[in-house]
Amino acid sequence: MERALQLSLKGIGHTNPNPMVGAVIVKDGRIIGEGYHRKYGEAHAEVNAFDNATEDVKGAEMYVTLEPCAHYGKTPPCAERIVKEGIKKVYVAIGDPNSKVGGKGIEILKSAGIEVEVGFLEDKCKKVNEIFLHYIKNKTPFVIAKWAMTLDGKIAANTGDSKWITNEKSREHVHKLRQRVSAILVGHNCVKKDDPMLNVRLENLENGVSNPTRVIVATDGDIDCKLKVVKTAREIPTIVAAKVIDDIKRRELESYGVEVLLCAERDGRVSIKDLVKKLGERNIDSLLIEGGGEILASAFEENVVNKISAFIAPKVIGGRDAVTAIEGKGHPLMNMATKVKNIKYKTFDDDILIEGDVECSQE
Amino acid sequence: MERALQLSLKGIGHTNPNPMVGAVIVKDGRIIGEGYHRKYGEAHAEVNAFDNATEDVKGAEMYVTLEPCAHYGKTPPCAERIVKEGIKKVYVAIGDPNSKVGGKGIEILKSAGIEVEVGFLEDKCKKVNEIFLHYIKNKTPFVIAKWAMTLDGKIAANTGDSKWITNEKSREHVHKLRQRVSAILVGHNCVKKDDPMLNVRLENLENGVSNPTRVIVATDGDIDCKLKVVKTAREIPTIVAAKVIDDIKRRELESYGVEVLLCAERDGRVSIKDLVKKLGERNIDSLLIEGGGEILASAFEENVVNKISAFIAPKVIGGRDAVTAIEGKGHPLMNMATKVKNIKYKTFDDDILIEGDVECSQE
Repeated sequence: MERALQLSLKGIGHTNPNPMVGAVIVKDGRIIGEGYHRKYGEAHAEVNAFDNATEDVKGAEMYVTLEPCAHYGKTPPCAERIVKEGIKKVYVAIGDPNSKVGGKGIEILKSAGIEVEVGFLEDKCKKVNEIFLHYIKNKTPFVIAKWAMTLDGKIAANTGDSKWITNEKSREHVHKLRQRVSAILVGHNCVKKDDPMLNVRLENLENGVSNPTRVIVATDGDIDCKLKVVKTAREIPTIVAAKVIDDIKRRELESYGVEVLLCAERDGRVSIKDLVKKLGERNIDSLLIEGGGEILASAFEENVVNKISAFIAPKVIGGRDAVTAIEGKGHPLMNMATKVKNIKYKTFDDDILIEGDVECSQE
Repeated sequence: MERALQLSLKGIGHTNPNPMVGAVIVKDGRIIGEGYHRKYGEAHAEVNAFDNATEDVKGAEMYVTLEPCAHYGKTPPCAERIVKEGIKKVYVAIGDPNSKVGGKGIEILKSAGIEVEVGFLEDKCKKVNEIFLHYIKNKTPFVIAKWAMTLDGKIAANTGDSKWITNEKSREHVHKLRQRVSAILVGHNCVKKDDPMLNVRLENLENGVSNPTRVIVATDGDIDCKLKVVKTAREIPTIVAAKVIDDIKRRELESYGVEVLLCAERDGRVSIKDLVKKLGERNIDSLLIEGGGEILASAFEENVVNKISAFIAPKVIGGRDAVTAIEGKGHPLMNMATKVKNIKYKTFDDDILIEGDVECSQE
């Protein structure tokens, strides 16, 4: 099952909004077939395992990280294929919460006389597919709030300068976070200031790079069409989320291939909660919010953040007017602060990345 | 030598401004005597080791974490005692930078025909005595800047509320930091807000608790005499550092046993650099600055911080007006930020403590 889980991770960033799944076929203690779900719309892990099998799979056992599907979607149901191939026993890591599958895959196997055992490496498999499991249940993207700050909590100097807070290794890791999600969100100010591409810059990925959709929040939609994110909107999908927008500007943006998304208002700004809901309707199962401080604050205030990724660099910038990681109004009392649990630490040389799950957020 | 180093740590918080030293006497591969410097003014580690020896030390070897002293201070020179006792060979971890000792202890041993080897566990022994080594060289205290902040860099909510940011284990560790130093420094606002005792609350210490001197920075010296730090000034030394002070207030504070220290001005406030210098003249070899954000900013701006201890709690409070760890004006560019090196992490459940040495500070 460890091997199946490992295989599943090869699909990272390509299967959304499908889960990442790995499958291993074992006969007489030897692995005779392996597969993983490579890409949304393509063959499932089980099918790939059968197709890659090096000998007859009849009477073999299969390990799969998620319950085999039972419905005709973009591909035929895997449960039926498993029956047809004559597998003797199936080990399933976790059941599928998808209402179209939910227990039916296992039923098909059992009624065909196949022995089924469920519940292996559950925590790990759930963690690997936290995005999928969240999206299936809520139909809104799994939201990760990401920021990079100094040891004194600033995301920029008092002049706005922020190049660079973290080291190269940390910044490379940000590209891995981007690769994992379906969309990235930043505020208009970030785009105006740095004119970033907001793409994934990673090399040597077996399965290639997948660029998430770029979402720019601009209250009035008044985005300069000379910006890179607009000019490259035909290569990498780009959405401008606005409260209102001028008709001419809308048509101009659309002529570049940008999608304009009108959202509800909250305190005079774009409601991040409404935006997240609308992104969910567009098959976006995961969203990385990269800032700035006011956008992140709105996301916390509207209670849409599921997970945080905070990079901390070993430097002190100071400044009572410098921008901090989370701005907004803030909670008045310390015991009202949003708690983060299941804390994990990673280090990138002297930078540290703190990750955790937000308590009481929608699951 | 590991054992000697371990012993030396038992003196933590009691030897200032002397170093912590441990000594072990070994004969035929067996430890026959151990000692450490328990308290400033009392017997040195070597003497304690001799006094605790369980058999004749003639011909034995001695391991000591710092060069034995050669001068008559509060106690007679240890180097002469070692000669007198007939020790055959001495292993010295690091030489003594104190100009009154500096190589002379080793000279005495060598001219008496004792074999001497220097340089063992140097990095560890220097780290253990970083305070002593700094103070001997600079005559100013070794300054540790300490703060506790949320994951978004705030040391209080927008209302000023800060109870509690960190968990109990972290707060207990703060008492260990206090135990280690000769003085604690906080701003007048902190004292006004919480009326703290600023003492050491630790139990089960073999060598007992030692309370550091409390230093309160108040620009105009106008401190309320009903505050605990004033009322208990006869039990725990208390200094009020002011730019100016009213004569009546001065006499009132002094009547409680508070020492009033007038310091130079910087930007309309007490110059932390001048204060640190004056504390050094009062035999204070180490200072823990516990905040708030403006005091810490001054300390960084005046370049007196040697080490940082930043606690980070897994919660998000938000607030563009909430106080951050380091306020002040701040550096205008990210590449001008004060770098922190030799980063170390400790965790207290889900809280994390980041510690490191400030680059380019006085050594």
